[in-house]
Amino acid sequence: MEYSDKVAVVERYVEAFDQQDMNIIREIYADDAVVEDPVGSELHEGIEAVCAFYEGALGSGARLVVTGPVRAAANTAAFPFQVQMGEMSIDIIDVFEFNAEGKVTSMKAYWGPDNM
Amino acid sequence: MEYSDKVAVVERYVEAFDQQDMNIIREIYADDAVVEDPVGSELHEGIEAVCAFYEGALGSGARLVVTGPVRAAANTAAFPFQVQMGEMSIDIIDVFEFNAEGKVTSMKAYWGPDNM
Repeated sequence: MEYSDKVAVVERYVEAFDQQDMNIIREIYADDAVVEDPVGSELHEGIEAVCAFYEGALGSGARLVVTGPVRAAANTAAFPFQVQMGEMSIDIIDVFEFNAEGKVTSMKAYWGPDNM
Repeated sequence: MEYSDKVAVVERYVEAFDQQDMNIIREIYADDAVVEDPVGSELHEGIEAVCAFYEGALGSGARLVVTGPVRAAANTAAFPFQVQMGEMSIDIIDVFEFNAEGKVTSMKAYWGPDNM
């Protein structure tokens, strides 16, 4: 998977929030994807559980602003961003792991109360 | 482990490079620490292998500049930074995992050729 392909997935992810478009979420994630957001919380396992999680997140009207370059190592991408909801913002780092088809199989979001 | 404790470890880590001080590396890492830098490369397992890795890294004269807030979730910290060596720089995200004693047991560095 090329660096540009990973960056494109991150851009589509931002777009999913901008457009509140669940089709993009389904396009990005693999059927067996696991989401841990934030790290240490209950896992969302499988595409339906993942979509249920994002329906809440997208419905909140949150917007994502990427705040630095996407880092790409092996089958992963890590990127820093800020979630903005009205006057509130959260600083987060997401780590995506991709499968051979370029779909995200694992997402871990690093943030906590001190990042709000 | 408080957020401020995690930030302090990241600051000590930056200091280790600034001062080329291996004692700080030994202070930060647990005896059974595992370092994967970059993610996908061979693991450095155990404090002696970790120190051998850092002797090379610190000896290169690299300096670390943190480029955004430390994200803290559960027993982890993730942070974006730039390694600067003369005219060269690399954009990296490190993820630290801490044990109950506040020592780093796992470090994963996310970066690749496209981040240089």
